[in-house]
Amino acid sequence: MDLLSVLHFDELSHGLANLSMFPYFDMAHYIVSVMALREQPGALEVSRVSPLACWFSSMLFCFGGAVLSGIMLAEPPVAPLSNSTGVLLASVIWYLVFYCPMDLVYACASPLPLRLVLSGMKEVTRTWKVLGGVTQAHSKYKDGLLVMIAIGWARGAGGGLISNFEQLVRGVWKPETNELLKMSYPTKITLIGAVLFALQQTHYLPLQKHHLMFIYTVFIVVNKSRMMLTGSSTSPFATIESALYKTLFAGYSPYAALISEVKSACIDNSSMNKTTTTKESSENGSPGQETPTSPATGQSSSLEAKEESPNAAATNCKKTN
Amino acid sequence: MDLLSVLHFDELSHGLANLSMFPYFDMAHYIVSVMALREQPGALEVSRVSPLACWFSSMLFCFGGAVLSGIMLAEPPVAPLSNSTGVLLASVIWYLVFYCPMDLVYACASPLPLRLVLSGMKEVTRTWKVLGGVTQAHSKYKDGLLVMIAIGWARGAGGGLISNFEQLVRGVWKPETNELLKMSYPTKITLIGAVLFALQQTHYLPLQKHHLMFIYTVFIVVNKSRMMLTGSSTSPFATIESALYKTLFAGYSPYAALISEVKSACIDNSSMNKTTTTKESSENGSPGQETPTSPATGQSSSLEAKEESPNAAATNCKKTN
Amino acid sequence: MDLLSVLHFDELSHGLANLSMFPYFDMAHYIVSVMALREQPGALEVSRVSPLACWFSSMLFCFGGAVLSGIMLAEPPVAPLSNSTGVLLASVIWYLVFYCPMDLVYACASPLPLRLVLSGMKEVTRTWKVLGGVTQAHSKYKDGLLVMIAIGWARGAGGGLISNFEQLVRGVWKPETNELLKMSYPTKITLIGAVLFALQQTHYLPLQKHHLMFIYTVFIVVNKSRMMLTGSSTSPFATIESALYKTLFAGYSPYAALISEVKSACIDNSSMNKTTTTKESSENGSPGQETPTSPATGQSSSLEAKEESPNAAATNCKKTN
Repeated sequence: MDLLSVLHFDELSHGLANLSMFPYFDMAHYIVSVMALREQPGALEVSRVSPLACWFSSMLFCFGGAVLSGIMLAEPPVAPLSNSTGVLLASVIWYLVFYCPMDLVYACASPLPLRLVLSGMKEVTRTWKVLGGVTQAHSKYKDGLLVMIAIGWARGAGGGLISNFEQLVRGVWKPETNELLKMSYPTKITLIGAVLFALQQTHYLPLQKHHLMFIYTVFIVVNKSRMMLTGSSTSPFATIESALYKTLFAGYSPYAALISEVKSACIDNSSMNKTTTTKESSENGSPGQETPTSPATGQSSSLEAKEESPNAAATNCKKTN
Repeated sequence: MDLLSVLHFDELSHGLANLSMFPYFDMAHYIVSVMALREQPGALEVSRVSPLACWFSSMLFCFGGAVLSGIMLAEPPVAPLSNSTGVLLASVIWYLVFYCPMDLVYACASPLPLRLVLSGMKEVTRTWKVLGGVTQAHSKYKDGLLVMIAIGWARGAGGGLISNFEQLVRGVWKPETNELLKMSYPTKITLIGAVLFALQQTHYLPLQKHHLMFIYTVFIVVNKSRMMLTGSSTSPFATIESALYKTLFAGYSPYAALISEVKSACIDNSSMNKTTTTKESSENGSPGQETPTSPATGQSSSLEAKEESPNAAATNCKKTN
Repeated sequence: MDLLSVLHFDELSHGLANLSMFPYFDMAHYIVSVMALREQPGALEVSRVSPLACWFSSMLFCFGGAVLSGIMLAEPPVAPLSNSTGVLLASVIWYLVFYCPMDLVYACASPLPLRLVLSGMKEVTRTWKVLGGVTQAHSKYKDGLLVMIAIGWARGAGGGLISNFEQLVRGVWKPETNELLKMSYPTKITLIGAVLFALQQTHYLPLQKHHLMFIYTVFIVVNKSRMMLTGSSTSPFATIESALYKTLFAGYSPYAALISEVKSACIDNSSMNKTTTTKESSENGSPGQETPTSPATGQSSSLEAKEESPNAAATNCKKTN
């Protein structure tokens, strides 16, 4: 019984590892990506004002990972453009999703059953992209575990990581948030995948590659489907994250307290309420609890008044790099 | 008669193709570019506060194309700096345009006759830059038509394409617009040139290279002169663009209508007037009619309320890449 | 006597040149860099909300020079990540400075005596980084003096030069200022070092490399200590800068005066006071006197009204690149 299930598992793993992403899985990835772009605030208006900006944004959504990992490895970021078939396919999908008469394509792909299937297929491509990035980095930096993780992560979640700049193409600029400050679920799951595949490549994780691919793919597909079916956006790692955070990163900082006293005395009532609230909420905040008033306020005047080191006289308050 | 004119055409084309851009045409390019920078709002003040930032901006105006195409092809963006003669010449011109006693140089180069000649010469360098970019991309990506177009475009209009970041050097940040959202005439004409030269390189366009160079150069010089003499800024392609846009990109989107109903109900009166106006104007907008209230408003709060997918419960509203 | 002191000088120079930066000097550099980050407004809050963003920021502070010079030379910006020992050491220091129970590490390293020693050691690493950058550029561009200066500068002061983007990681965006518009002391001293080492490499400066290293290192260490002990932030070059500026860059511009007349007539009273004040203060400003109302106001509406060329009818006011 055990041997049979192992054989099946092995067969399935090999089957999955030898699967070609082109054309169906890639198509699903493009469709889901372009639809996600379309659902961004303001994207439909951009599509009517500047089809070129809309097309460029869609290409960043579809190929953002390859572009970012290319930049990080000093390989031409235009390389994805040389994959003419892929770009052509993505462009056709972009045109149909945004400009199809009566929005036929968008209307057909939106309902949950088909969207579920497409999203599942997209998750399968995630495995390939992470693995591709890790392998590419491994060929250049044999022992660079961190480099492998970084490139695998960029390749798999590049579109999300460069979201600030993709939004800039559409004329939107939201500097107060980014994927590092507030990581979305896809970016988080890709980071975990990159870590696992990098550990496997460097033989720290005693698993065969096609087995890990199978396990990881099954996990992300099942989890994505669960989240779509239940409408929940809770990360499955929320409890682990919370525990890890409270242990490692939530220490009380006496100097921060000293600073907040100085701060309270320095700034006027109206902003004082806002800043002390921010300080308390961020000191108690954990990734599990969403702190909407994130510290990245972008209000340079109030921020300038905060956090003066007790040794400000002897050192530059500004960067002394 | 026909043969004679063909011979003349061929001679002229060869003559133009063998023309050296250095030093006179390059000089004209630097002068027009630095003067264009000087006429930017706030540039003169920057020149008085930080000559270094002003110089860096000028270099981006003069060599922006080479820098951008270098970044895209993973070649050192500092490479233009190694062309010491060019950089020295551009720096001398920068100094004279910004700091010449009594503004002699700027005063002499501003009047229309000389400006017309200099702009014409600058347009000639555009052909060389686009062709250089297309050729450079062709050597790396034999069949990459899109790559050739992208690199030719970047090389020829790079300064305009990176305008957001060039402005950042001067402390100006205008995320609500960029050359993709609202393409200026030089960027448009460069894109067309890049497409033509790329098609010629890959033999889709049955023209000899020096003939195409001649035709394209004559066209852009004549058009630029016409625009400067008449003071008009209407693109010669306005009718074609308008027709193309109405055919391909101006489809009515039922889902967008659904969304605007939801939107009207959700948001308060004051912002409702603004957003519905934006929606109507952008649905009717075409590149010919300038829509100043472009969709790229940058007002994240009102944008967040817009465009909720009917399946928002089942999918992430945010990017699900 | 003379010969003896020369021998001592030579011995000391050789000794310094053969000193290894790892691990003590590098450690000092990481400690001072991370502490400088911690003293940035809002950084402590970011550390509590997103340790990953905080870690990434710290790595940019510690390795920013290597990243920036890598980007400029089209070498992989992730290369610093492959230096696992360095990254591990910097990460441990990051963790201890931000999250040590009772802030022990920060409390111990803050007082002036130890901070002075650490800052002095950090200044020593600056020499190595500048020299490394100049040498690296020299190997690629034998005669590229400007390239050597640029790369040496980037390598030595990269963290400061990319400060806008490092702040973006923490959700802070201050486009109105950058290191080119308003150069901080470390960036200035690094630029001077890059120029000196580049001139030495190309034999324009008749000094031996290890002698120059010694002189430069002694100068920057002594100057940094003086500034920390006296609490002064006056650059030692203030008088030279001022003289250079007044000679070369402070010319009166008749066209600017013409423009300000037009400006006064065009804009309303409230903004007029602000803009005329800005214009006067920036025309009189020198790097020595800090002009807080820098021209980089970022107020696109008022800036649009400024600075219209007298030949606006014949030329595009906007970029005509």
